[in-house]
Amino acid sequence: MHVAKGVTRVFREMPRLVAVESCVFGEGTLPRLLVLTMSCPDRIGIVAGVTRFLAEHGGWIVEANYHADQKDGWFFMRQAILADSFRLSVPDFGSRFSSIAEQFGIFWKLSDTQYKKRLVLCVSRQDHCLSDLFHRWKTPEAGFDIVAVFSNHEDLRPFVEWHEVPFRHVPVAPGNDDPAFEEMARLYECYRGESMVLARYMRILPPWFCQRFEGQILNIHHSFLPSFVGARPYHQAYERGVKLIGATCHYVTGDLDAGPIIEQDVIRVDHGDSPEEMARLGRDIERIVLARGVQYHVEDRVLIHGSKTIVFR
Amino acid sequence: MHVAKGVTRVFREMPRLVAVESCVFGEGTLPRLLVLTMSCPDRIGIVAGVTRFLAEHGGWIVEANYHADQKDGWFFMRQAILADSFRLSVPDFGSRFSSIAEQFGIFWKLSDTQYKKRLVLCVSRQDHCLSDLFHRWKTPEAGFDIVAVFSNHEDLRPFVEWHEVPFRHVPVAPGNDDPAFEEMARLYECYRGESMVLARYMRILPPWFCQRFEGQILNIHHSFLPSFVGARPYHQAYERGVKLIGATCHYVTGDLDAGPIIEQDVIRVDHGDSPEEMARLGRDIERIVLARGVQYHVEDRVLIHGSKTIVFR
Amino acid sequence: MHVAKGVTRVFREMPRLVAVESCVFGEGTLPRLLVLTMSCPDRIGIVAGVTRFLAEHGGWIVEANYHADQKDGWFFMRQAILADSFRLSVPDFGSRFSSIAEQFGIFWKLSDTQYKKRLVLCVSRQDHCLSDLFHRWKTPEAGFDIVAVFSNHEDLRPFVEWHEVPFRHVPVAPGNDDPAFEEMARLYECYRGESMVLARYMRILPPWFCQRFEGQILNIHHSFLPSFVGARPYHQAYERGVKLIGATCHYVTGDLDAGPIIEQDVIRVDHGDSPEEMARLGRDIERIVLARGVQYHVEDRVLIHGSKTIVFR
Amino acid sequence: MHVAKGVTRVFREMPRLVAVESCVFGEGTLPRLLVLTMSCPDRIGIVAGVTRFLAEHGGWIVEANYHADQKDGWFFMRQAILADSFRLSVPDFGSRFSSIAEQFGIFWKLSDTQYKKRLVLCVSRQDHCLSDLFHRWKTPEAGFDIVAVFSNHEDLRPFVEWHEVPFRHVPVAPGNDDPAFEEMARLYECYRGESMVLARYMRILPPWFCQRFEGQILNIHHSFLPSFVGARPYHQAYERGVKLIGATCHYVTGDLDAGPIIEQDVIRVDHGDSPEEMARLGRDIERIVLARGVQYHVEDRVLIHGSKTIVFR
Repeated sequence: MHVAKGVTRVFREMPRLVAVESCVFGEGTLPRLLVLTMSCPDRIGIVAGVTRFLAEHGGWIVEANYHADQKDGWFFMRQAILADSFRLSVPDFGSRFSSIAEQFGIFWKLSDTQYKKRLVLCVSRQDHCLSDLFHRWKTPEAGFDIVAVFSNHEDLRPFVEWHEVPFRHVPVAPGNDDPAFEEMARLYECYRGESMVLARYMRILPPWFCQRFEGQILNIHHSFLPSFVGARPYHQAYERGVKLIGATCHYVTGDLDAGPIIEQDVIRVDHGDSPEEMARLGRDIERIVLARGVQYHVEDRVLIHGSKTIVFR
Repeated sequence: MHVAKGVTRVFREMPRLVAVESCVFGEGTLPRLLVLTMSCPDRIGIVAGVTRFLAEHGGWIVEANYHADQKDGWFFMRQAILADSFRLSVPDFGSRFSSIAEQFGIFWKLSDTQYKKRLVLCVSRQDHCLSDLFHRWKTPEAGFDIVAVFSNHEDLRPFVEWHEVPFRHVPVAPGNDDPAFEEMARLYECYRGESMVLARYMRILPPWFCQRFEGQILNIHHSFLPSFVGARPYHQAYERGVKLIGATCHYVTGDLDAGPIIEQDVIRVDHGDSPEEMARLGRDIERIVLARGVQYHVEDRVLIHGSKTIVFR
Repeated sequence: MHVAKGVTRVFREMPRLVAVESCVFGEGTLPRLLVLTMSCPDRIGIVAGVTRFLAEHGGWIVEANYHADQKDGWFFMRQAILADSFRLSVPDFGSRFSSIAEQFGIFWKLSDTQYKKRLVLCVSRQDHCLSDLFHRWKTPEAGFDIVAVFSNHEDLRPFVEWHEVPFRHVPVAPGNDDPAFEEMARLYECYRGESMVLARYMRILPPWFCQRFEGQILNIHHSFLPSFVGARPYHQAYERGVKLIGATCHYVTGDLDAGPIIEQDVIRVDHGDSPEEMARLGRDIERIVLARGVQYHVEDRVLIHGSKTIVFR
Repeated sequence: MHVAKGVTRVFREMPRLVAVESCVFGEGTLPRLLVLTMSCPDRIGIVAGVTRFLAEHGGWIVEANYHADQKDGWFFMRQAILADSFRLSVPDFGSRFSSIAEQFGIFWKLSDTQYKKRLVLCVSRQDHCLSDLFHRWKTPEAGFDIVAVFSNHEDLRPFVEWHEVPFRHVPVAPGNDDPAFEEMARLYECYRGESMVLARYMRILPPWFCQRFEGQILNIHHSFLPSFVGARPYHQAYERGVKLIGATCHYVTGDLDAGPIIEQDVIRVDHGDSPEEMARLGRDIERIVLARGVQYHVEDRVLIHGSKTIVFR
């Protein structure tokens, strides 16, 4: 192999010295970060241009991810910058970054982890995803606040209100669901929701609602999509005799269960499992897949690219 | 959430245009790449400095990975550059890159995927890992050549020679194994081996041998390390009654089964599985874990950092 | 292949007729079952003898599991019988079954799923396993009741009491823990606990306590045992650089983290995950592994055999 | 919990004595077994009747599996009997078992592991499944012989013939494939094939062929069915943006990729994986899923029940 080596010492002999400038976090503390996500047509010099800009303003990068879609010629990037190191405020960032953004045709977004994303959860009667998200909300690493829960049923009100979160009952009239979704849209904006999570919400959203909040609505579907679209996927899985069942977290679009997939996982079943047992086993996967999807979303790790996602885990 | 947005159009509205400069690969063709791996004390400006250097010489980056070890204050990077786009030859790279390397204290290596890594395999009597690696060697994406097979037994000679690879029988005398390993070291250098893969080689290498070829020897251990170090791990697993068995690919050091781990995986077993059945099930995991470990290694995706690895998958 | 065939029609041509005698359960209803678990020295005729006895009393078997440990010559069986079909009451069973039990040297137990197992949970400050078990308790398929929660801290009292479950604070004095565990033993019996679940209880039980309640205490250990016994397993995993982390549900014995393993599972990590991130990822595995272990235990699917378990899933 | 207990000693105190009658196998030796598989309408007394018959003729059962399909009211059983213990020859079995078979309406089959199943493999150009099955064939636990390989291409002839297995080139004419499949049917019977394994055979079998050999043809499909039926499933998976790809081993029927599923598994992919990389990763899953499916099939662990399978693993 033709190899050029820079220095005589190789990696394995590397001293474990701690650089003077390094930033060592205390255990368990989560530093405040600025998260820059961006995309643009792929070309030479993007990373050099952007990272030079960040370095010039003191930005200490603690996590960086890149993806080049070679088929479409499009480039994606996520940079997590230590907020304390960066000498530009979030409002100032835009004006200073604009010349680089224009040069490369960059679409970008800058988030501050100090401000948690405001989630509205939608549920029906099942509470396994709801209780899981409430539990995670209480952990220090949750990047979100639950600001309200909407439901077409009253069942889960006591649980939600015990957590001191507003519970709004929005019943959906059969054959005329528009008024209900207009009310939900109004409430969502009223609570200043930034994302809506369908945590086993059992009604189909109308197309106008999906379009209005495109990229903001996450759903958990209880199958490994694209298998078993629509109703009663565990019964479909049982009838087909599959040996693994799954769950899919995806963005909601006007096409039922066809939006960009964020996360999926599966669990093994066998001939002895009835549809009811599959549903029981599947709930564990639904909860985890939805939790992961929400976490990736609120940490700005998900970039939507056409009908697919880039997930910088 | 406090968010600055660069442009009014957001990601999901992104046009699927193909940039003029983009490089679309034909299906199935693997482009020639230059792979730069490096590490240095972490500080601000490393990525900016290095990527600017690459951009100045036309380097089109198709894959990039970064890792900052915040505990040790050490930074790691891997850049895959399209060879055709880069205006520096491999020999010239060193002299031009030296000022940046000195500025940041960078240890670096540049590989050219056109030159495949020269592997020597060591085996005893079992052939499942050997035959798996031979099979992968024949695929277009293999980044390695098998230049010789060493064994302490004659059993696998016909299989190896049918593939037109030299087979060298090096018997190891009980109680006096140094002559055998001296011979293996001599042959390894004779065949200009660049890495040695212990594909179920059932002898313990002497410490001097491990040190001499540190970072070059990969082993597959048939347990999920650090559980079940040493001999007969499936029998140990059976006795302990574990519900999953595993395999571990690691670099060999003087400490038995304690070198830096590259890859691991597991498979489910239950009370009905005897040690022999565990061994049978385990072979599927051993083959895959070793194959992945070898692939990561030959593609320069593994950086050794003390007793651990960074694996840029 | 030498094959005898019983009839000309083969399996794939089997008519999908529903036998007149068959018992079709309505969706979602869980039938009342009698669960017979037993073990004895292995010999010919055990299954014939026992199943004939069950059939003579009308027992409709809906699930059956067998295991013969060929190394030890010991036989294990679990039979789930539809309670409505069986003409013997649970108290009468013993006297009628005794002649068969004596003939084969059978140790046996008969449980009625109508009576749910009485669990006492022990916790410290972390609530992810606790809240998960509370959630499952509310589902129709839970085979257990949570009759009390013991803790060495007061933190989780509000959550427990909201669920209207008694919360007993039993602080453990450093260097003199016997009085605390004597109190816990007294309370456990007071609440007529049938099993004790250590749901991230962070104190080591004294040997006398483990022996007194042998086979009744389940623990969740946050590593893939036998790796990383004892304190801070995620830190140990981080230091060793493993690529998968796990959790283990096991019966507690006097040997720390060495009791019979009931269930294990793992999740992938990489070089970028700090011990804190491993702990976060690991919590999802801990909850599921503990939940599965508890379910197998309360459904009498686990038979302890020396230092190992048979789990009839 | 209401529990009757048979004896005062409980399981955990069970002596580890070895029963006088027990049959301890030497390590690594595989005993000769008779495997009885059967199904019938579910009713009380089947297991008692059958196991009593086996016990009366000295049958030592080493593995037993049961399944009752409560929806269809149908019962399935597999019994593995130590051949040396059984006093009936395979030909005698039928006449003696017939009265029980008639009483319960049993469809049954008895296989002798001494006689290995005769497999014919069909391949096109890709060899990863082929070489995997050849490798497993050489292990002591293989329950099959490879008696011939059929292909629509000549590419794999040298590999097959090196293993001293007949290679038959049967080209398929576009638009008129019946003559080719008539030739394959003739050859299959000529070689006394008992099962046909499509190991990445890239032609669609005509319906008459599927029907003629129903239950004898296994295929590996390179997707997690029912997702991505038909051609180029990895490209379909890439376009849909799924986060896991899979493989499915199933019996072939006249409906393309819709036959009863025997085994499935998946592997994680992400946005960075091109269709070609998915294909590379998928090959590892294809090989393992096909190998498992073939093993279950030749060990008579698979019972076809309508459009589904019961797999007694």
